[in-house]
Amino acid sequence: MYRPEIKVLDCTIRDGGLMNNWQFTDEFVRDVYQALVAAGVDYMEIGYKSSASAFSKTENGAWKFCEEEALRKIVGDEKGDIKLSAMADIGRIEPNDIAPKDQSLLDMIRVACYVNEVDKAIWLAEHCKDKGYETCINVMAVSTALERDLDEALNDLSKCKIPNIYLVDSFGSMYSEQIEYLARKYKTALPGKTIGIHAHNNMQLAFSNTVTAIIENCNMLDATMLGIGRGAGNCPIEILMSFLKNPKFNLRPILHVIEKHLIQMQREIPWGYYIPYMLAGAKNQHPRVSMKWVESEKRDKLVDFFDSMVDGMDI
Amino acid sequence: MYRPEIKVLDCTIRDGGLMNNWQFTDEFVRDVYQALVAAGVDYMEIGYKSSASAFSKTENGAWKFCEEEALRKIVGDEKGDIKLSAMADIGRIEPNDIAPKDQSLLDMIRVACYVNEVDKAIWLAEHCKDKGYETCINVMAVSTALERDLDEALNDLSKCKIPNIYLVDSFGSMYSEQIEYLARKYKTALPGKTIGIHAHNNMQLAFSNTVTAIIENCNMLDATMLGIGRGAGNCPIEILMSFLKNPKFNLRPILHVIEKHLIQMQREIPWGYYIPYMLAGAKNQHPRVSMKWVESEKRDKLVDFFDSMVDGMDI
Repeated sequence: MYRPEIKVLDCTIRDGGLMNNWQFTDEFVRDVYQALVAAGVDYMEIGYKSSASAFSKTENGAWKFCEEEALRKIVGDEKGDIKLSAMADIGRIEPNDIAPKDQSLLDMIRVACYVNEVDKAIWLAEHCKDKGYETCINVMAVSTALERDLDEALNDLSKCKIPNIYLVDSFGSMYSEQIEYLARKYKTALPGKTIGIHAHNNMQLAFSNTVTAIIENCNMLDATMLGIGRGAGNCPIEILMSFLKNPKFNLRPILHVIEKHLIQMQREIPWGYYIPYMLAGAKNQHPRVSMKWVESEKRDKLVDFFDSMVDGMDI
Repeated sequence: MYRPEIKVLDCTIRDGGLMNNWQFTDEFVRDVYQALVAAGVDYMEIGYKSSASAFSKTENGAWKFCEEEALRKIVGDEKGDIKLSAMADIGRIEPNDIAPKDQSLLDMIRVACYVNEVDKAIWLAEHCKDKGYETCINVMAVSTALERDLDEALNDLSKCKIPNIYLVDSFGSMYSEQIEYLARKYKTALPGKTIGIHAHNNMQLAFSNTVTAIIENCNMLDATMLGIGRGAGNCPIEILMSFLKNPKFNLRPILHVIEKHLIQMQREIPWGYYIPYMLAGAKNQHPRVSMKWVESEKRDKLVDFFDSMVDGMDI
């Protein structure tokens, strides 16, 4: 029996864009959008909301900024039955750059922050809420947070007006027991709030950790088509949709986009399971060193990577 | 803290050989063998024990038969600190073709069978035990077994002399809750026996289901290098070794073989996550239809595959 509270959020464009600076064609973004509407997915995270003063518009595609004109080109005249989300990073957006909700096609702003930035995140998210948006806070990289800092952050979050808080396994370093532990901690510390899960696939655990989070009553689930995302990527939405039982979900339109776009795209901007990402996950490290390695001609020198990592750990 | 009872069984050659009829070079098999010894892996399953009368020796490489001469070429004069295993399929081996243990380099015979063949499997495995081997029975495809048939098979197994019984997710169709349920059922039905886990990766759950099985006190764990195996493949041993805490395990030699052989091999005989395999897992189907599709020029026609599967299910 399905749980109607469960919502799926596709972040193919937002997270996948980390691979190519959001240089996607409008056709691709439109195909993703229309497929998600047809598939019954609840939210599409279409990019970041960033200040034009903070990033170059030649280096970064439209989805680094999510301006209304760009959104309108995708959505067309009549918006489908899906909510659009944009992510805002602390310090990379001016509150004034966020239009009131009634002037925007966006429905939700998700604020991403580290544990020690929770106060700033709450301030920005409440600002967005006051402007009329659904809101959410993604607390990143909790696998490296000290328990006491996390407890304090959760205490702050419990008192804020933001209804949705995400458990984020930024480094793809968590096993099911850690997801279970943290999901229970979040549920206990944040009564009345919805908990979400955003998992990475370094150790081929993104889907299974998402299932563990579902079992632990997390009700917002992030995923991307064919798992596109930085490094090892994310929870593949096609597996998640095969698993979920809500009759409104329909896998077929998503397979169509994977067939039409993603298979070829993965050949051009490779993501997915590979040993340097796996090792970073297993060691609870940021994937940036692995990504640099995999993008270099040393890509397949796995033993050298292993040795450099062990050496690095000794410092 | 690690659990010393846990044993890792690498079946890179046996299961990987399903992809290329065991046409591996001696150099590759020797490199795998030596790496597993250096890595502290407990068992190497080097192939099948089959009767020469049952299979062609031109179509199948040496590891379909595991004759002593072939084993000696790999092991050299002095056998390393690892146990060698071969799998025997019911009906494809004459008991007389199995030499007494003191004339063989093999340490263990694993008998594979379906639920309705358990009596035959017990007979063959006890025959091998009487000849001096460690023994094991792998009950395949339990995801399609009726509960009553499985209970009867477990009852028979509980009374036999074979100490190791495997839970096998042949179709890669099980989620953690099913692994948990079946592992508990096996533990309860088979007091005093060691339970093993052999998982497939159709839904990217092979490693995570192996971890679930560990939590449920399964102590024999199958895995292969880079997950090589039929279709979506198996639990990748490199992730499993990163997870296990026993200080005797050493990942580095395994990475060396992956770097030297497996990366290139995967380009020639592709295995691993792909949507036709995922859909077969999600629908609890044998992967043979998916494999045929993926090997054809229709490989990337994902929507057609989905439609054909849905049509097939309607019959």
